[in-house]
Amino acid sequence: MTVSKAAALDAAKVSRPLRKAADDTAIDLGELSELLGYSLKRAQLKIFEDFLRCVAPLQLTPAQFSVLLLLERNPGRNQTEVANTLGILRPNFVAMLDGLESRDLCARMRSANDRRSHVLVLTDKGRAVLSRAKKLVAAKHESRLNELIGPANRAALLAMLSKIANEF
Amino acid sequence: MTVSKAAALDAAKVSRPLRKAADDTAIDLGELSELLGYSLKRAQLKIFEDFLRCVAPLQLTPAQFSVLLLLERNPGRNQTEVANTLGILRPNFVAMLDGLESRDLCARMRSANDRRSHVLVLTDKGRAVLSRAKKLVAAKHESRLNELIGPANRAALLAMLSKIANEF
Repeated sequence: MTVSKAAALDAAKVSRPLRKAADDTAIDLGELSELLGYSLKRAQLKIFEDFLRCVAPLQLTPAQFSVLLLLERNPGRNQTEVANTLGILRPNFVAMLDGLESRDLCARMRSANDRRSHVLVLTDKGRAVLSRAKKLVAAKHESRLNELIGPANRAALLAMLSKIANEF
Repeated sequence: MTVSKAAALDAAKVSRPLRKAADDTAIDLGELSELLGYSLKRAQLKIFEDFLRCVAPLQLTPAQFSVLLLLERNPGRNQTEVANTLGILRPNFVAMLDGLESRDLCARMRSANDRRSHVLVLTDKGRAVLSRAKKLVAAKHESRLNELIGPANRAALLAMLSKIANEF
């Protein structure tokens, strides 16, 4: 380890006042606050936490909710297509489907024309849970977000994020 | 499993044309494209992928880069403060510090006034690697992002993301 002597001395010297100040002095983010990736990640974590709280009665993660939404809109598509659309790695997606299937929310069926591949469908219970989840998301989660940033800003934000996701 | 008969038949019926169309028909995102959380996650993944590519010669993840930036700006702060600032869970943060320390990029030192706590400092090598990383990020990553969305939009985006991260 090659901490320069000056840096080590600085750290030792400042540790007492900094330690004391730790309770009321926030760490200085410096350049970090100017990095889009950092701000995106912090906002995304905050939104995911709130989503989990709002949908807690139904025990759905944002990723599981996305899968159910896609299956409702696109019945009979195969696993790979759905996983790729959501950018979920295959092993993670298989584990997620195992969980959803064990709760009787979706089902894997052998494809009629390719016995090696599975197509995905919502079960009746999956459809019912999704319908309740949509209502909770709209009433608790999205409406609060709308209130916070306003509908015009929300549309602008969505457009920029899509541009980054599709073109960067 | 209770897939309704009609849904199962629908899935079986449509599986052939959908399968055939899979190569050229994208899955319909439907309501998903209107959800801020989904768009945030997709944009964030895209930005993180590009970051990894740009900083590949230095083998730094976005999270590791953030830690080094914070240590440079705030020498002598303790582990918990840095982990909390970045929203990284303690076990994950300890593993990350182990990795950075084994590469001689940062060092944990016993706090002078509280022997149970560790303060963090950059090593000289950590400072040098961070300086190269900053240049790569600015020249390759941030400049391309700026080009894509424009500096005014970038500032607006950053402001909205901070608002969500701090107030939602």
